[in-house]
Amino acid sequence: MAIQVGIIMGSKSDLPIMSEAAIVLEELGVEYELTVVSAHRTPHRMVEYAESAKNRGLKVIIAGAGGAAHLPGMVASLTTLPVLGVPIKSSNSIDGWDSVLSILQMPAGIPVATLALNGARNAGILAASIVGAFNEDISLKLSSFKDSLKEKVETSAKEIETKGWRNT
Amino acid sequence: MAIQVGIIMGSKSDLPIMSEAAIVLEELGVEYELTVVSAHRTPHRMVEYAESAKNRGLKVIIAGAGGAAHLPGMVASLTTLPVLGVPIKSSNSIDGWDSVLSILQMPAGIPVATLALNGARNAGILAASIVGAFNEDISLKLSSFKDSLKEKVETSAKEIETKGWRNT
Amino acid sequence: MAIQVGIIMGSKSDLPIMSEAAIVLEELGVEYELTVVSAHRTPHRMVEYAESAKNRGLKVIIAGAGGAAHLPGMVASLTTLPVLGVPIKSSNSIDGWDSVLSILQMPAGIPVATLALNGARNAGILAASIVGAFNEDISLKLSSFKDSLKEKVETSAKEIETKGWRNT
Amino acid sequence: MAIQVGIIMGSKSDLPIMSEAAIVLEELGVEYELTVVSAHRTPHRMVEYAESAKNRGLKVIIAGAGGAAHLPGMVASLTTLPVLGVPIKSSNSIDGWDSVLSILQMPAGIPVATLALNGARNAGILAASIVGAFNEDISLKLSSFKDSLKEKVETSAKEIETKGWRNT
Amino acid sequence: MAIQVGIIMGSKSDLPIMSEAAIVLEELGVEYELTVVSAHRTPHRMVEYAESAKNRGLKVIIAGAGGAAHLPGMVASLTTLPVLGVPIKSSNSIDGWDSVLSILQMPAGIPVATLALNGARNAGILAASIVGAFNEDISLKLSSFKDSLKEKVETSAKEIETKGWRNT
Amino acid sequence: MAIQVGIIMGSKSDLPIMSEAAIVLEELGVEYELTVVSAHRTPHRMVEYAESAKNRGLKVIIAGAGGAAHLPGMVASLTTLPVLGVPIKSSNSIDGWDSVLSILQMPAGIPVATLALNGARNAGILAASIVGAFNEDISLKLSSFKDSLKEKVETSAKEIETKGWRNT
Amino acid sequence: MAIQVGIIMGSKSDLPIMSEAAIVLEELGVEYELTVVSAHRTPHRMVEYAESAKNRGLKVIIAGAGGAAHLPGMVASLTTLPVLGVPIKSSNSIDGWDSVLSILQMPAGIPVATLALNGARNAGILAASIVGAFNEDISLKLSSFKDSLKEKVETSAKEIETKGWRNT
Amino acid sequence: MAIQVGIIMGSKSDLPIMSEAAIVLEELGVEYELTVVSAHRTPHRMVEYAESAKNRGLKVIIAGAGGAAHLPGMVASLTTLPVLGVPIKSSNSIDGWDSVLSILQMPAGIPVATLALNGARNAGILAASIVGAFNEDISLKLSSFKDSLKEKVETSAKEIETKGWRNT
Repeated sequence: MAIQVGIIMGSKSDLPIMSEAAIVLEELGVEYELTVVSAHRTPHRMVEYAESAKNRGLKVIIAGAGGAAHLPGMVASLTTLPVLGVPIKSSNSIDGWDSVLSILQMPAGIPVATLALNGARNAGILAASIVGAFNEDISLKLSSFKDSLKEKVETSAKEIETKGWRNT
Repeated sequence: MAIQVGIIMGSKSDLPIMSEAAIVLEELGVEYELTVVSAHRTPHRMVEYAESAKNRGLKVIIAGAGGAAHLPGMVASLTTLPVLGVPIKSSNSIDGWDSVLSILQMPAGIPVATLALNGARNAGILAASIVGAFNEDISLKLSSFKDSLKEKVETSAKEIETKGWRNT
Repeated sequence: MAIQVGIIMGSKSDLPIMSEAAIVLEELGVEYELTVVSAHRTPHRMVEYAESAKNRGLKVIIAGAGGAAHLPGMVASLTTLPVLGVPIKSSNSIDGWDSVLSILQMPAGIPVATLALNGARNAGILAASIVGAFNEDISLKLSSFKDSLKEKVETSAKEIETKGWRNT
Repeated sequence: MAIQVGIIMGSKSDLPIMSEAAIVLEELGVEYELTVVSAHRTPHRMVEYAESAKNRGLKVIIAGAGGAAHLPGMVASLTTLPVLGVPIKSSNSIDGWDSVLSILQMPAGIPVATLALNGARNAGILAASIVGAFNEDISLKLSSFKDSLKEKVETSAKEIETKGWRNT
Repeated sequence: MAIQVGIIMGSKSDLPIMSEAAIVLEELGVEYELTVVSAHRTPHRMVEYAESAKNRGLKVIIAGAGGAAHLPGMVASLTTLPVLGVPIKSSNSIDGWDSVLSILQMPAGIPVATLALNGARNAGILAASIVGAFNEDISLKLSSFKDSLKEKVETSAKEIETKGWRNT
Repeated sequence: MAIQVGIIMGSKSDLPIMSEAAIVLEELGVEYELTVVSAHRTPHRMVEYAESAKNRGLKVIIAGAGGAAHLPGMVASLTTLPVLGVPIKSSNSIDGWDSVLSILQMPAGIPVATLALNGARNAGILAASIVGAFNEDISLKLSSFKDSLKEKVETSAKEIETKGWRNT
Repeated sequence: MAIQVGIIMGSKSDLPIMSEAAIVLEELGVEYELTVVSAHRTPHRMVEYAESAKNRGLKVIIAGAGGAAHLPGMVASLTTLPVLGVPIKSSNSIDGWDSVLSILQMPAGIPVATLALNGARNAGILAASIVGAFNEDISLKLSSFKDSLKEKVETSAKEIETKGWRNT
Repeated sequence: MAIQVGIIMGSKSDLPIMSEAAIVLEELGVEYELTVVSAHRTPHRMVEYAESAKNRGLKVIIAGAGGAAHLPGMVASLTTLPVLGVPIKSSNSIDGWDSVLSILQMPAGIPVATLALNGARNAGILAASIVGAFNEDISLKLSSFKDSLKEKVETSAKEIETKGWRNT
């Protein structure tokens, strides 16, 4: 399969969070690329990345940024691909509210699909579910993935119910 | 084209907001269905809707709800399709914060693509961009749509620049 | 006495908080059961748990969850028993606001009795006070419990007043 | 049936909100009393009301107040009965946050079951569900009540699905 | 001088914060008493303390409490003395907002003079300024106190200006 | 009696709120003066007002301001008198949070007694309680005032209890 | 004088707010230009505007935008000129918090000078003070402007003091 | 070049944050002075500093303060120079919201250019951009500075792209 998902972030310091998107995409068998693109420090690189994404075959872009996070929204303004935004609670953030609101509250016309604060893993899963809506293989992997989440809960439930909560 | 997008909302009173998703999908030539499904008042109907959506051919689900908004997240737990959540500033809402946070802050494993408060129109555009990533017709319509947004700005800019802001 | 209170939580990682409800119920002599039920990862298990609770003899359900916390509200939609919701400040939470609002702001028709953030101990006491309203034994234990709270304050007050605050 | 539920509020100006609890209790066949008790203006009346409530046969107290809302918590400190707190968005409130937090965030030992902002109707339903947990008649009425909520949703869904959303 | 200021707090665990009020009153030569009074665990002790305060000769009451902080407001409802409220960021607090709002947002008729979060030292100074408004000795001590604050700033300013900021 | 209380506000547009302090001081028999002093537009007038207040015989200063409200804190920095701050929800305010926080969160050393948002009436009562702590006449008037608040509640309670809440 | 200040806004609907910057610049004798530039709908126009601004002789750029407001920050990333950002409380805003935070919380390296919510008038005055720091004419006009603010306060103060607040 | 920028802060404890403004001004070749001026503890020093700044040749004032931060706004009321305000998250701050709002929300007529929370480095860059708008040397240094930011991003991007994100 060609590369389906582009993962970008405003700064290399976002990698510990954003790599979770990469990891889950690997688990789900979706090809991706990952790099650093800063809206504020490399605006032209951002324009180029966003405008070429569709022609390079990408289906989804995941963009993470912290503070006054402009990367997801600006990329969305420059492509017709779906853009998933991950608000990052960076060191200069006011409890994450700035990142959340500057990604979420896009004006009518230019949507960004916003994930939870630091929710890069969920961005990866959402990207896979978008690809999976048009690809049965990925869809089946998502089903197994959901089953494994369920089984983990059921296992810990059974353990607590049989041994008692004090012994687990 | 078969129906690609399912639009659901927790209450018929959400229709004035949520119908904006329907309207923009019509503009962009994407087939949709629209109905009312309440997580809290019709939980079994919700389970059935979410679990049958993929088999019925849907590619994307748009779910809008207000207050402690559980519909988008619960639907996401019951399908592998991408779920777009629209927080609605309902009459019982605390300035919309409740709707936004109860849709956005999903736990790892079960993502919801959250839009701006009352952002149903953007949910429709995002759904179209998801479909459009795999369908060149829709993608072209999205490009024209983006062009028309640009032209409206340029027209009003030109008007202000030539006539002066006091005369527009 | 039969089991009166069911304690459930969205994840085993909530046990350090939620076990406080169990501990205080033991102090107050109220029988309980405790297990893990996830709204998002085991939605069918949740439906089954909630719908069978009344027939299994439970009088109160305590449900704890963090982030976009849907467990208390969804359980409330599936039973006529009183549901007490404990918002948990989980690691992915925005200072607890998400958990609080997604449990508290339930729509008209489906109430959840919301406790303070991480207030599992108070959920246990509230469950006991509900049982105690119809059971004189439990009511008397609650009175003693309240007396012991009072005495602890009076003891520390007396100590400060007699020894001086610098010597306590 | 004897009076089961006491409804109190900090000011007569809270009656338009708090009477919704009374109305739904009437719908559900639960006997109640209703009066005004102010924590700040009639503290002794409050002490007397709270301390006599159990002996007068009440099973649940619903207390509503706005701003720095101390009535629910203070009543909870003076009785072993379950106290349901309704935060009211009064004219002097900061968007309701003050009422919500001063009712919700009770210290360990003295719980208040907090409802949504202005959620007096839900307080009435919750009180009925507490009574209903020990009274099959009320429990059956709650089941019918829940069914009627479901049917209202299903009816509006059917209408939209058959007539189309533009014609409803 | 007789005891002018009563310092009370909801729990002995508040002593590390509230003792700052005592310390600054000692610095300013104002007599005080200090003890623990809990609105929620010792409501009758609170009524007694507040109602006897004026007759015992107190001029000002400083009350500190955390979470859903009802002590300052309830004391204010029971005395004509000025009550200074110190919101405490206790372990169960949501960033202090609960304490601040449940002390600050008192209804018309029953004021509490609210200090900054954890601002017990300022409560002591404010109490002294109230006493000092009617007592020239205390007023002069407050003037010296203010002068010493000024001198400390001027000294560090001079040091930075002469040595350079890197050498201080 | 000489003038005891000075009421100042940042702008004449604050008069509808701040005059409530004047009105209640008249009710309570406390002499006051009232004028406009702006921290930002008349800083020298503010310095002069604050520094002369004690010598002119004032005992308490009430200062109201909106937005980034610096008047109460700056006046407090320039006098040893107690300063009561009234946060005003002015037209340019973000729901009043700016006014509240810029008055409340004073640094250690320079307290301001903060009242509720728009709480000018309570500022007047608090000023009277400060004067009343040292003046038995005012103290008695405050007691009567408190009694009248209580009676109003009791009257409306009796009316509701005898006529039923639907008939009041 | 050549044009010193460029005023831009994300949408023509921002003109009622943003024109206040223009009006005060006219009062202060500073030349400006005004047009519409949207970060999200006309990203290339934005790049061109920002990158050419310095060469066209501008000294300051004022940029206003609402919701997830990216215009000020993106312009700041594309020029070395000082950029003043005006958060606008647009119809889709969550009480203005989104606009404020997405302009204010810029990452290190790319500052935006943020004004109060809807503070376009102040943006104009700040632009004039920047120009005035290097131009004695403008500086003198700013001094007169400040004097006129002072005089308005003094006039209304005198009126209140002489006529009494009830007669003004 | 003469000293262009004055850096002041409310307390020496703010130096670790505020010195970042000094450091970046040194990097950009802009002369500055730095000292401590407290609005609340040295109000007269503040008046003198602000009123003499322009005559002493300063072009810009950077003022940092925490909590109820009055220094930037009060300095702005006393000078026609542009004032850049740095909200500091001091130990007594409520997550920084108090500092941000008491600097940002200045009334019409008296602007403060507000930077991000703890954004002293950006205040220095903004001051340099103000000086640079009228000084080609500084402007060129700002261009190089922006280039170096861009290159750092491009370098880390290239490293990730060539080595893979796991190896960087």
